Amino acid sequence: MNTLIKNAMAVLPGGKVEQADISIEGNIIKAVGDIPEDAVHERIIDGSGKLAVPGFVNAHTHAAMTLLRSYADDMALMDWLQNKIWPVEEKMTDDDLYWGTMLAAVEMIRTGTTAFADMYGPDEGIVAKAAIESGLRAVLSKGIIAVAPGADQKLEDNVCLYKTYHGAENGRITVMLGPHALYTCPPDFLRKVADKAALLGAEIHIHMSETQGEVEDCLKNYGKRPFAHVESTGLFEHGTLAAHCVHLDDEDIEIIKRHKIRVAHNPGSNLKLASGMAPVQRLLEEGVCVGLGTDGASSNNNLDMLEEIRLAALLSKVESKNPKAVPASRAIQMGTELGARAVGLGDTGRLAPGCKADISLFSMDGAEWHPCHNPLSLLVYSAGSGSADTVLVDGRVLMEKKQLCTIDEEKVYFEVERCAKRLGI
Amino acid sequence: MNTLIKNAMAVLPGGKVEQADISIEGNIIKAVGDIPEDAVHERIIDGSGKLAVPGFVNAHTHAAMTLLRSYADDMALMDWLQNKIWPVEEKMTDDDLYWGTMLAAVEMIRTGTTAFADMYGPDEGIVAKAAIESGLRAVLSKGIIAVAPGADQKLEDNVCLYKTYHGAENGRITVMLGPHALYTCPPDFLRKVADKAALLGAEIHIHMSETQGEVEDCLKNYGKRPFAHVESTGLFEHGTLAAHCVHLDDEDIEIIKRHKIRVAHNPGSNLKLASGMAPVQRLLEEGVCVGLGTDGASSNNNLDMLEEIRLAALLSKVESKNPKAVPASRAIQMGTELGARAVGLGDTGRLAPGCKADISLFSMDGAEWHPCHNPLSLLVYSAGSGSADTVLVDGRVLMEKKQLCTIDEEKVYFEVERCAKRLGI
Repeated sequence: MNTLIKNAMAVLPGGKVEQADISIEGNIIKAVGDIPEDAVHERIIDGSGKLAVPGFVNAHTHAAMTLLRSYADDMALMDWLQNKIWPVEEKMTDDDLYWGTMLAAVEMIRTGTTAFADMYGPDEGIVAKAAIESGLRAVLSKGIIAVAPGADQKLEDNVCLYKTYHGAENGRITVMLGPHALYTCPPDFLRKVADKAALLGAEIHIHMSETQGEVEDCLKNYGKRPFAHVESTGLFEHGTLAAHCVHLDDEDIEIIKRHKIRVAHNPGSNLKLASGMAPVQRLLEEGVCVGLGTDGASSNNNLDMLEEIRLAALLSKVESKNPKAVPASRAIQMGTELGARAVGLGDTGRLAPGCKADISLFSMDGAEWHPCHNPLSLLVYSAGSGSADTVLVDGRVLMEKKQLCTIDEEKVYFEVERCAKRLGI
Repeated sequence: MNTLIKNAMAVLPGGKVEQADISIEGNIIKAVGDIPEDAVHERIIDGSGKLAVPGFVNAHTHAAMTLLRSYADDMALMDWLQNKIWPVEEKMTDDDLYWGTMLAAVEMIRTGTTAFADMYGPDEGIVAKAAIESGLRAVLSKGIIAVAPGADQKLEDNVCLYKTYHGAENGRITVMLGPHALYTCPPDFLRKVADKAALLGAEIHIHMSETQGEVEDCLKNYGKRPFAHVESTGLFEHGTLAAHCVHLDDEDIEIIKRHKIRVAHNPGSNLKLASGMAPVQRLLEEGVCVGLGTDGASSNNNLDMLEEIRLAALLSKVESKNPKAVPASRAIQMGTELGARAVGLGDTGRLAPGCKADISLFSMDGAEWHPCHNPLSLLVYSAGSGSADTVLVDGRVLMEKKQLCTIDEEKVYFEVERCAKRLGI
């Protein structure tokens, strides 16, 4: 179906905002601004009073963990993991995974997110199923904890996930390999993953340098900082999405640049777990591709990308002691175009001809949108994601005028509460 | 009118959440939980599926500046002030002040705020008028910049404001004296303000130690750090609300404790202007009363107290390197009870018998409220202020089921856009 979005204010690549119609042919943006006179559209979406933005790309999350939202907060990381999260994860069934992910899908669509890069251990095929049903774009990886039993089987599962889903749904679903982190995957195992990645042509999604403790342990155990250590295993040879990257020194940043590693910055989670503040302004100045992620909803506690965009802009100013660091246009770019490139979806994240038609429209009608001097600044610094009104992925409407089109959300809430009750959370 | 809120989940003092009816007689909470059988209520509000919270107290803002929202962002402080904010403030008329404040009132009510401590230079009487009309509770002060011409007249204006409005509207409007800061008010002038405060029995609202530059300049000019310098003028003798307090050392904290100075922490503004991170966890541990403020919407850029509550919880964890710092219940307390005490309204900010009936109800019906394991944690870490559904001040309903009762908001938006256009913003 061909769709025309009429009369919206559009956030164009580079951050310029202007009134522009957007013509969509199938799943591709055909034209922005000057629409060919002979273009035929079966569907017209009225964009008056709305801001059209490339759909947000959540570059690092664990969607099924949305089921554990606010189950345990305000705790030290290991106490939280060992005494709360891991015991309840042990009890989670396929049903829990499915409804947890569907809850995530509802929240992502409702807040203007169109794509997410996921990593989770139990059965990522269920996440694939939920992503396919919801209509969202997804970059899936099995989170492999190789220090637990069955490491090789988990890697096989991730390979199987790749063979089954990479490129599925006309390219809407893609797959990476997901060794969880250097402290959960010994070097020999990382080498195995690197070999598989070479064989498949698959990219890697991994947690890197999230905490100071991780850096210190790595130095103690391997005599190297995390990036040098993982580099030595060959894992960075095949394209890498590195989540967190909070604690970096000059050498780390050189390795990131050398291997064109893309970073998923998770400001909300890094604050909540007291991990620290990533040197985002420095990374951007060095030309590193930095996208944004929410991390899992159990350490955030939501999947609201507009919050992460705002936090990225605010936090970078204090981290770099520079009020001009990460201005509004850059923060939006991190949540869209850079995020898309970070997760390997370079043909999304921009309102430009030839890009995938992943678009979110925000209603500019609340108090927080007045006076309407600078819509982009209002989106980044003032508005809430509750302004998200209409969301398209691959040219398909997933939400229109705040009504979800692909998911029965009342059923999702009902099933989520049922699952949570059974799990005792 | 007597009102009964039935079947809500209520956030009680201390942070406990339980299902409890709330009985209101006139402007006072009469009972929470066990409602006397002979209580008569003319109005019943259905609180099913809603979280009842003490109305948020915005402990430091400049309401009329909401008119300048997103007029100028991502700039260095002095460039922003000198080349953007001050020139446009020169042109602002009474009409602009009024509609800017009414826009602030709409936004505050819509986001669950029931009281605000305001400081602004031009004509605080207009802010009083808007506060009275809106039904909000307000603590007003004229922001006096004594290094500009007419300092004594400004102090007289503030005294006149006090005499006219302190205790007005059955105590809903109160007034403080507002010497802007030590770098805009020479010590002799601060002494004059202290004398007037003693004469009137008025308290003080002042910016303190917002930036590192302020501390350094104070040391250079007066040989003392800001708190010691201002203490020497006698200004702290009469009850003080000190906004910001970002850069503090041990001696500063001793002075804060000695004079029982209450702090308004403004995390969003402090990040956006790259001012730094206030030592909130330390202050709380030392027994200091710390409320939360949004600062003006031109450096935030909204008046959303739930964002400040979340930021206070998140930022304190990184600032103190402790994931258990400022847990959800404490963050809510800062946005309600502690904020109320900070601005001199000790009889508000709690859902308890004898307190003023300033109450906000949040609908717990979006994805971000599921699963509903811990409503308080969900409010602080997951939900958006768009969930605010019903708001009461002094037992009077200002918003019911998301409809404003005291303000014609479409007219406000129309007038605000007209004012902004005339000002060229």
